Amino acid sequence: MSNVTSQISISLDGYAAGPHQSLDNPIGEGGMRLHQWALATDTWRAQHGLEGGEHGPDSAIAEQSMQGIGAFVMGRNMFSPGRGAWDESWTGWWGDDPPYHAPVYVLTHHAREPLEMQGGTTFYFVTDGIESALEQARAAAGEQDVSIAGGASTVNQYLAAGLLDELHLHIAPVLLGSGERLLEGVGDPQLEPIAVVASPAATHIRYRVVH
Amino acid sequence: MSNVTSQISISLDGYAAGPHQSLDNPIGEGGMRLHQWALATDTWRAQHGLEGGEHGPDSAIAEQSMQGIGAFVMGRNMFSPGRGAWDESWTGWWGDDPPYHAPVYVLTHHAREPLEMQGGTTFYFVTDGIESALEQARAAAGEQDVSIAGGASTVNQYLAAGLLDELHLHIAPVLLGSGERLLEGVGDPQLEPIAVVASPAATHIRYRVVH
Repeated sequence: MSNVTSQISISLDGYAAGPHQSLDNPIGEGGMRLHQWALATDTWRAQHGLEGGEHGPDSAIAEQSMQGIGAFVMGRNMFSPGRGAWDESWTGWWGDDPPYHAPVYVLTHHAREPLEMQGGTTFYFVTDGIESALEQARAAAGEQDVSIAGGASTVNQYLAAGLLDELHLHIAPVLLGSGERLLEGVGDPQLEPIAVVASPAATHIRYRVVH
Repeated sequence: MSNVTSQISISLDGYAAGPHQSLDNPIGEGGMRLHQWALATDTWRAQHGLEGGEHGPDSAIAEQSMQGIGAFVMGRNMFSPGRGAWDESWTGWWGDDPPYHAPVYVLTHHAREPLEMQGGTTFYFVTDGIESALEQARAAAGEQDVSIAGGASTVNQYLAAGLLDELHLHIAPVLLGSGERLLEGVGDPQLEPIAVVASPAATHIRYRVVH
Protein backbone atom coordinates (compact mmCIF):
# COMPACT_ATOMS: atom_id res chain seq x y z
CA MET A 1 0.00 0.00 0.00
CA SER A 2 1.32 3.37 -1.02
CA ASN A 3 2.15 5.89 1.72
CA VAL A 4 1.77 9.65 1.79
CA THR A 5 5.06 10.95 3.13
CA SER A 6 6.73 14.26 3.65
CA GLN A 7 10.30 15.16 4.46
CA ILE A 8 11.21 18.63 5.52
CA SER A 9 14.02 20.46 7.31
CA ILE A 10 13.24 22.43 10.46
CA SER A 11 15.18 24.38 13.02
CA LEU A 12 15.44 23.07 16.57
CA ASP A 13 12.94 25.77 17.52
CA GLY A 14 10.44 24.50 14.96
CA TYR A 15 10.72 26.83 11.97
CA ALA A 16 10.66 25.54 8.41
CA ALA A 17 11.45 28.99 7.01
CA GLY A 18 13.03 32.12 8.43
CA PRO A 19 11.41 35.51 8.95
CA HIS A 20 10.84 38.11 6.21
CA GLN A 21 10.19 35.70 3.34
CA SER A 22 10.26 37.58 0.07
CA LEU A 23 10.44 36.92 -3.63
CA ASP A 24 14.22 37.36 -3.45
CA ASN A 25 14.51 35.25 -0.33
CA PRO A 26 11.75 32.64 -0.56
CA ILE A 27 12.70 30.69 2.56
CA GLY A 28 13.33 33.77 4.69
CA GLU A 29 16.34 35.09 6.54
CA GLY A 30 18.52 32.26 7.75
CA GLY A 31 16.27 29.70 6.06
CA MET A 32 19.14 28.26 4.02
CA ARG A 33 20.82 27.21 7.28
CA LEU A 34 18.12 24.55 7.64
CA HIS A 35 19.23 22.90 4.40
CA GLN A 36 23.01 22.94 4.81
CA TRP A 37 23.00 19.27 5.89
CA ALA A 38 21.60 18.35 2.45
CA LEU A 39 23.37 20.88 0.26
CA ALA A 40 26.74 19.64 1.49
CA THR A 41 26.11 16.03 0.44
CA ASP A 42 27.32 14.30 -2.70
CA THR A 43 23.85 12.85 -3.30
CA TRP A 44 22.00 16.18 -3.24
CA ARG A 45 24.61 17.64 -5.59
CA ALA A 46 24.29 14.69 -7.97
CA GLN A 47 20.46 15.03 -7.91
CA HIS A 48 20.97 18.61 -9.07
CA GLY A 49 23.60 17.85 -11.70
CA LEU A 50 26.58 18.96 -9.62
CA GLU A 51 29.81 17.14 -8.78
CA GLY A 52 31.56 16.73 -5.45
CA GLY A 53 30.13 17.05 -1.96
CA GLU A 54 30.56 15.08 1.22
CA HIS A 55 29.71 11.42 1.62
CA GLY A 56 28.32 10.55 5.05
CA PRO A 57 25.14 9.65 6.94
CA ASP A 58 23.36 12.66 5.47
CA SER A 59 24.03 11.37 1.94
CA ALA A 60 21.88 8.30 2.46
CA ILE A 61 19.10 10.46 3.89
CA ALA A 62 19.20 12.82 0.92
CA GLU A 63 19.12 9.83 -1.41
CA GLN A 64 16.22 8.05 0.36
CA SER A 65 14.19 11.23 0.30
CA MET A 66 13.80 10.95 -3.47
CA GLN A 67 13.45 7.15 -3.74
CA GLY A 68 10.26 5.17 -4.15
CA ILE A 69 8.22 8.28 -4.86
CA GLY A 70 5.71 7.98 -7.71
CA ALA A 71 4.31 11.51 -7.54
CA PHE A 72 4.80 14.78 -5.66
CA VAL A 73 2.50 17.51 -4.39
CA MET A 74 3.80 21.01 -3.75
CA GLY A 75 2.46 24.43 -2.89
CA ARG A 76 2.42 27.23 -5.43
CA ASN A 77 5.04 29.14 -3.44
CA MET A 78 7.49 26.26 -3.71
CA PHE A 79 7.08 26.18 -7.49
CA SER A 80 7.19 29.88 -8.20
CA PRO A 81 8.20 33.19 -6.66
CA GLY A 82 5.24 34.86 -8.35
CA ARG A 83 1.70 35.19 -6.99
CA GLY A 84 -1.62 35.75 -8.74
CA ALA A 85 -2.00 35.04 -12.47
CA TRP A 86 0.72 32.94 -14.06
CA ASP A 87 3.76 34.27 -15.85
CA GLU A 88 3.85 31.33 -18.25
CA SER A 89 7.55 31.78 -18.95
CA TRP A 90 8.18 30.53 -15.38
CA THR A 91 8.86 26.78 -15.42
CA GLY A 92 10.14 26.27 -11.85
CA TRP A 93 13.41 26.81 -10.03
CA TRP A 94 15.07 23.64 -11.27
CA GLY A 95 16.01 24.21 -14.94
CA ASP A 96 14.97 21.98 -17.85
CA ASP A 97 15.45 18.67 -15.98
CA PRO A 98 13.99 19.02 -12.45
CA PRO A 99 15.06 16.47 -9.82
CA TYR A 100 11.56 14.96 -9.45
CA HIS A 101 11.41 12.62 -12.50
CA ALA A 102 7.70 12.05 -11.80
CA PRO A 103 4.40 13.95 -11.95
CA VAL A 104 4.30 16.96 -9.62
CA TYR A 105 0.89 18.39 -8.60
CA VAL A 106 1.15 22.09 -7.84
CA LEU A 107 -1.55 23.61 -5.62
CA THR A 108 -2.73 26.93 -7.01
CA HIS A 109 -5.75 29.18 -7.37
CA HIS A 110 -4.86 29.85 -11.01
CA ALA A 111 -5.43 27.27 -13.73
CA ARG A 112 -2.60 26.45 -16.11
CA GLU A 113 -1.92 23.77 -18.71
CA PRO A 114 0.38 20.90 -17.66
CA LEU A 115 4.07 21.62 -18.16
CA GLU A 116 6.18 18.73 -19.36
CA MET A 117 9.87 19.00 -18.54
CA GLN A 118 12.81 16.75 -19.35
CA GLY A 119 13.60 13.60 -17.38
CA GLY A 120 10.03 12.56 -16.64
CA THR A 121 8.90 15.55 -14.57
CA THR A 122 5.53 17.01 -15.51
CA PHE A 123 3.96 19.80 -13.45
CA TYR A 124 0.16 19.64 -13.18
CA PHE A 125 -1.68 22.64 -11.75
CA VAL A 126 -4.49 21.77 -9.37
CA THR A 127 -7.08 24.40 -8.49
CA ASP A 128 -9.58 22.38 -6.47
CA GLY A 129 -7.74 21.80 -3.20
CA ILE A 130 -5.39 19.53 -1.33
CA GLU A 131 -7.61 16.42 -1.36
CA SER A 132 -8.01 16.56 -5.12
CA ALA A 133 -4.28 17.03 -5.60
CA LEU A 134 -3.58 14.03 -3.38
CA GLU A 135 -6.13 11.89 -5.19
CA GLN A 136 -4.53 12.70 -8.55
CA ALA A 137 -1.04 12.07 -7.14
CA ARG A 138 -2.12 8.71 -5.67
CA ALA A 139 -3.55 7.64 -8.99
CA ALA A 140 -0.33 8.59 -10.77
CA ALA A 141 1.93 6.98 -8.15
CA GLY A 142 0.29 3.55 -8.21
CA GLU A 143 2.16 1.30 -5.77
CA GLN A 144 4.76 3.96 -5.07
CA ASP A 145 4.60 6.64 -2.38
CA VAL A 146 3.28 10.16 -2.77
CA SER A 147 5.56 12.85 -1.35
CA ILE A 148 4.21 16.15 -0.08
CA ALA A 149 7.26 18.12 -1.16
CA GLY A 150 6.54 21.42 0.63
CA GLY A 151 6.66 24.20 1.51
CA ALA A 152 5.92 24.39 5.19
CA SER A 153 2.33 25.53 4.86
CA THR A 154 1.47 22.74 2.43
CA VAL A 155 2.95 20.06 4.71
CA ASN A 156 1.14 21.69 7.63
CA GLN A 157 -2.19 21.50 5.79
CA TYR A 158 -1.82 17.82 4.92
CA LEU A 159 -0.80 16.94 8.47
CA ALA A 160 -3.70 18.95 9.93
CA ALA A 161 -6.12 17.18 7.56
CA GLY A 162 -4.92 13.76 8.74
CA LEU A 163 -3.67 12.88 5.25
CA LEU A 164 0.00 12.17 6.04
CA ASP A 165 1.22 8.66 6.84
CA GLU A 166 4.85 9.57 7.52
CA LEU A 167 6.64 12.76 8.46
CA HIS A 168 10.41 12.73 8.10
CA LEU A 169 11.94 15.68 9.94
CA HIS A 170 15.50 16.86 9.47
CA ILE A 171 16.20 18.83 12.64
CA ALA A 172 19.03 21.28 12.03
CA PRO A 173 21.02 22.38 15.12
CA VAL A 174 19.98 25.96 14.50
CA LEU A 175 17.68 28.42 16.28
CA LEU A 176 16.01 30.89 13.92
CA GLY A 177 14.02 32.71 16.60
CA SER A 178 11.21 33.60 14.22
CA GLY A 179 9.75 32.62 10.86
CA GLU A 180 7.18 30.05 9.69
CA ARG A 181 6.44 27.20 12.07
CA LEU A 182 5.80 23.77 10.62
CA LEU A 183 3.75 22.16 13.38
CA GLU A 184 1.36 24.90 14.48
CA GLY A 185 -2.38 24.28 14.36
CA VAL A 186 -2.20 20.63 13.32
CA GLY A 187 -4.09 19.25 16.32
CA ASP A 188 -2.77 16.26 18.23
CA PRO A 189 -1.81 13.52 15.77
CA GLN A 190 -0.39 10.31 17.27
CA LEU A 191 3.25 10.14 16.18
CA GLU A 192 5.63 7.20 16.45
CA PRO A 193 9.35 7.67 15.81
CA ILE A 194 10.32 4.69 13.66
CA ALA A 195 13.87 5.55 12.52
CA VAL A 196 16.50 8.04 13.62
CA VAL A 197 19.77 8.88 11.86
CA ALA A 198 22.14 11.35 13.46
CA SER A 199 25.00 13.39 12.06
CA PRO A 200 26.77 16.54 13.23
CA ALA A 201 24.70 18.45 10.66
CA ALA A 202 21.18 17.28 11.56
CA THR A 203 19.09 14.72 13.41
CA HIS A 204 16.77 12.90 11.03
CA ILE A 205 13.65 11.47 12.67
CA ARG A 206 11.06 9.52 10.70
CA TYR A 207 7.63 9.61 12.37
CA ARG A 208 4.72 7.36 11.48
CA VAL A 209 1.35 9.06 11.88
CA VAL A 210 -0.90 6.48 13.54
CA HIS A 211 -4.41 6.56 12.07
CA MET B 1 36.85 21.12 33.79
CA SER B 2 33.33 21.03 35.12
CA ASN B 3 30.45 21.61 32.68
CA VAL B 4 27.16 23.38 33.15
CA THR B 5 24.56 21.05 31.70
CA SER B 6 20.82 20.85 31.47
CA GLN B 7 18.53 18.03 30.47
CA ILE B 8 14.88 18.66 29.80
CA SER B 9 11.95 17.03 28.04
CA ILE B 10 10.18 18.92 25.27
CA SER B 11 7.39 18.24 22.83
CA LEU B 12 8.15 17.99 19.13
CA ASP B 13 6.59 21.43 18.77
CA GLY B 14 8.97 22.89 21.35
CA TYR B 15 7.00 23.11 24.59
CA ALA B 16 8.53 22.17 27.95
CA ALA B 17 5.20 22.58 29.73
CA GLY B 18 1.59 22.51 28.62
CA PRO B 19 -0.94 25.36 28.71
CA HIS B 20 -2.84 26.49 31.84
CA GLN B 21 -0.12 25.79 34.39
CA SER B 22 -1.57 25.99 37.87
CA LEU B 23 -0.69 25.06 41.40
CA ASP B 24 -2.60 21.80 40.95
CA ASN B 25 -1.08 21.15 37.55
CA PRO B 26 2.41 22.65 37.67
CA ILE B 27 3.55 21.47 34.24
CA GLY B 28 0.30 22.36 32.50
CA GLU B 29 -2.27 20.36 30.58
CA GLY B 30 -0.63 17.45 28.80
CA GLY B 31 2.73 18.31 30.34
CA MET B 32 3.10 14.85 31.88
CA ARG B 33 3.10 13.36 28.36
CA LEU B 34 6.57 14.87 27.90
CA HIS B 35 7.93 12.78 30.76
CA GLN B 36 6.37 9.40 30.01
CA TRP B 37 9.63 8.16 28.45
CA ALA B 38 11.34 8.63 31.84
CA LEU B 39 8.52 7.66 34.19
CA ALA B 40 8.24 4.28 32.48
CA THR B 41 11.88 3.34 33.08
CA ASP B 42 13.26 1.14 35.85
CA THR B 43 16.01 3.67 36.56
CA TRP B 44 13.68 6.65 37.12
CA ARG B 45 11.52 4.49 39.39
CA ALA B 46 14.58 3.34 41.36
CA GLN B 47 15.76 6.98 41.71
CA HIS B 48 12.39 7.72 43.29
CA GLY B 49 12.30 4.65 45.54
CA LEU B 50 9.93 2.63 43.36
CA GLU B 51 10.25 -0.89 41.99
CA GLY B 52 9.62 -2.19 38.48
CA GLY B 53 9.58 -0.27 35.23
CA GLU B 54 10.92 -0.98 31.77
CA HIS B 55 14.58 -1.53 30.97
CA GLY B 56 15.62 -0.12 27.59
CA PRO B 57 17.52 2.71 25.89
CA ASP B 58 15.59 5.27 27.92
CA SER B 59 16.83 3.67 31.17
CA ALA B 60 20.43 4.56 30.44
CA ILE B 61 19.42 8.11 29.58
CA ALA B 62 17.48 8.51 32.82
CA GLU B 63 20.46 7.13 34.72
CA GLN B 64 23.06 9.35 33.01
CA SER B 65 20.95 12.42 33.67
CA MET B 66 21.71 12.15 37.41
CA GLN B 67 25.34 10.99 37.17
CA GLY B 68 28.46 13.10 37.61
CA ILE B 69 26.46 16.05 38.93
CA GLY B 70 27.98 17.83 41.92
CA ALA B 71 25.28 20.46 42.37
CA PHE B 72 21.94 21.52 40.91
CA VAL B 73 20.23 24.84 40.23
CA MET B 74 16.45 25.06 39.97
CA GLY B 75 13.76 27.71 39.69
CA ARG B 76 11.43 28.46 42.58
CA ASN B 77 8.48 27.06 40.63
CA MET B 78 10.18 23.70 40.28
CA PHE B 79 10.75 23.51 44.02
CA SER B 80 7.39 24.71 45.23
CA PRO B 81 3.82 25.27 44.07
CA GLY B 82 3.64 28.39 46.25
CA ARG B 83 4.61 31.93 45.27
CA GLY B 84 5.54 34.93 47.37
CA ALA B 85 6.67 34.51 51.00
CA TRP B 86 7.64 30.99 52.02
CA ASP B 87 5.40 28.47 53.69
CA GLU B 88 8.28 26.94 55.66
CA SER B 89 6.47 23.65 56.07
CA TRP B 90 7.04 23.07 52.32
CA THR B 91 10.22 21.03 51.78
CA GLY B 92 9.87 20.16 48.09
CA TRP B 93 7.92 17.61 46.06
CA TRP B 94 10.27 14.73 46.71
CA GLY B 95 9.71 13.58 50.31
CA ASP B 96 12.42 13.28 52.98
CA ASP B 97 15.09 11.85 50.64
CA PRO B 98 15.04 13.78 47.33
CA PRO B 99 16.70 12.21 44.30
CA TYR B 100 19.44 14.88 44.04
CA HIS B 101 21.90 13.72 46.75
CA ALA B 102 23.83 16.98 46.31
CA PRO B 103 23.39 20.70 47.03
CA VAL B 104 20.48 22.27 45.14
CA TYR B 105 20.42 26.06 44.65
CA VAL B 106 16.86 27.34 44.37
CA LEU B 107 16.33 30.71 42.63
CA THR B 108 13.88 32.85 44.56
CA HIS B 109 13.04 36.42 45.51
CA HIS B 110 12.39 35.36 49.12
CA ALA B 111 15.23 34.51 51.49
CA ARG B 112 15.07 31.28 53.48
CA GLU B 113 17.50 29.29 55.61
CA PRO B 114 19.12 26.25 53.99
CA LEU B 115 17.05 23.08 54.23
CA GLU B 116 18.99 19.88 54.84
CA MET B 117 17.21 16.72 53.73
CA GLN B 118 18.18 13.06 53.95
CA GLY B 119 20.57 11.42 51.50
CA GLY B 120 22.87 14.39 50.96
CA THR B 121 20.39 16.84 49.42
CA THR B 122 20.47 20.36 50.87
CA PHE B 123 18.35 23.13 49.35
CA TYR B 124 19.96 26.58 49.41
CA PHE B 125 17.81 29.59 48.57
CA VAL B 126 19.51 32.17 46.37
CA THR B 127 18.03 35.66 46.07
CA ASP B 128 20.69 37.46 44.05
CA GLY B 129 20.22 36.00 40.59
CA ILE B 130 21.20 33.24 38.21
CA GLU B 131 24.91 34.10 38.03
CA SER B 132 25.27 34.00 41.79
CA ALA B 133 23.42 30.67 41.99
CA LEU B 134 25.69 29.22 39.33
CA GLU B 135 28.83 30.50 41.06
CA GLN B 136 27.76 28.87 44.33
CA ALA B 137 26.84 25.64 42.55
CA ARG B 138 30.19 25.55 40.73
CA ALA B 139 32.05 26.01 44.00
CA ALA B 140 30.06 23.17 45.58
CA ALA B 141 30.41 20.86 42.57
CA GLY B 142 34.19 21.04 42.33
CA GLU B 143 35.31 18.82 39.44
CA GLN B 144 31.79 17.54 38.86
CA ASP B 145 29.17 19.08 36.60
CA VAL B 146 26.50 21.56 37.57
CA SER B 147 23.01 20.69 36.33
CA ILE B 148 20.41 23.36 35.64
CA ALA B 149 17.50 21.15 36.69
CA GLY B 150 14.60 23.31 35.43
CA GLY B 151 11.95 24.38 34.93
CA ALA B 152 11.73 25.65 31.39
CA SER B 153 12.12 29.33 32.21
CA THR B 154 15.24 28.70 34.30
CA VAL B 155 16.90 26.65 31.55
CA ASN B 156 15.84 29.31 29.06
CA GLN B 157 17.49 32.05 31.16
CA TYR B 158 20.80 30.19 31.49
CA LEU B 159 20.89 29.41 27.76
CA ALA B 160 20.06 33.03 26.86
CA ALA B 161 22.84 34.24 29.18
CA GLY B 162 25.41 32.01 27.46
CA LEU B 163 26.02 30.06 30.66
CA LEU B 164 25.16 26.54 29.45
CA ASP B 165 27.82 24.20 28.07
CA GLU B 166 25.51 21.32 27.20
CA LEU B 167 21.80 21.03 26.52
CA HIS B 168 20.38 17.51 26.52
CA LEU B 169 16.90 17.47 24.98
CA HIS B 170 14.46 14.61 25.29
CA ILE B 171 12.11 15.15 22.35
CA ALA B 172 8.81 13.40 23.03
CA PRO B 173 6.73 12.43 19.95
CA VAL B 174 3.93 14.65 21.15
CA LEU B 175 2.42 17.94 19.93
CA LEU B 176 1.04 20.08 22.75
CA GLY B 177 -0.10 22.97 20.54
CA SER B 178 0.42 25.54 23.27
CA GLY B 179 2.20 26.04 26.58
CA GLU B 180 5.65 27.26 27.62
CA ARG B 181 8.34 27.18 24.94
CA LEU B 182 11.86 26.26 25.96
CA LEU B 183 13.89 27.90 23.22
CA GLU B 184 12.23 31.28 22.72
CA GLY B 185 14.27 34.46 23.08
CA VAL B 186 17.63 32.76 23.60
CA GLY B 187 19.36 34.38 20.63
CA ASP B 188 21.40 32.30 18.22
CA PRO B 189 23.77 30.05 20.19
CA GLN B 190 26.00 27.73 18.15
CA LEU B 191 24.82 24.18 18.86
CA GLU B 192 26.56 20.93 17.98
CA PRO B 193 24.72 17.61 18.33
CA ILE B 194 27.26 15.29 19.96
CA ALA B 195 25.18 12.23 20.88
CA VAL B 196 21.78 10.90 19.89
CA VAL B 197 19.89 7.99 21.44
CA ALA B 198 16.54 6.98 19.99
CA SER B 199 13.68 4.94 21.38
CA PRO B 200 10.00 4.68 20.50
CA ALA B 201 9.29 6.94 23.49
CA ALA B 202 11.65 9.84 22.77
CA THR B 203 14.66 11.05 20.77
CA HIS B 204 17.45 12.15 23.10
CA ILE B 205 19.84 14.69 21.57
CA ARG B 206 22.82 16.05 23.47
CA TYR B 207 23.94 19.45 22.15
CA ARG B 208 27.21 21.13 22.99
CA VAL B 209 26.96 24.91 23.14
CA VAL B 210 30.05 26.22 21.36
CA HIS B 211 31.46 29.28 23.12
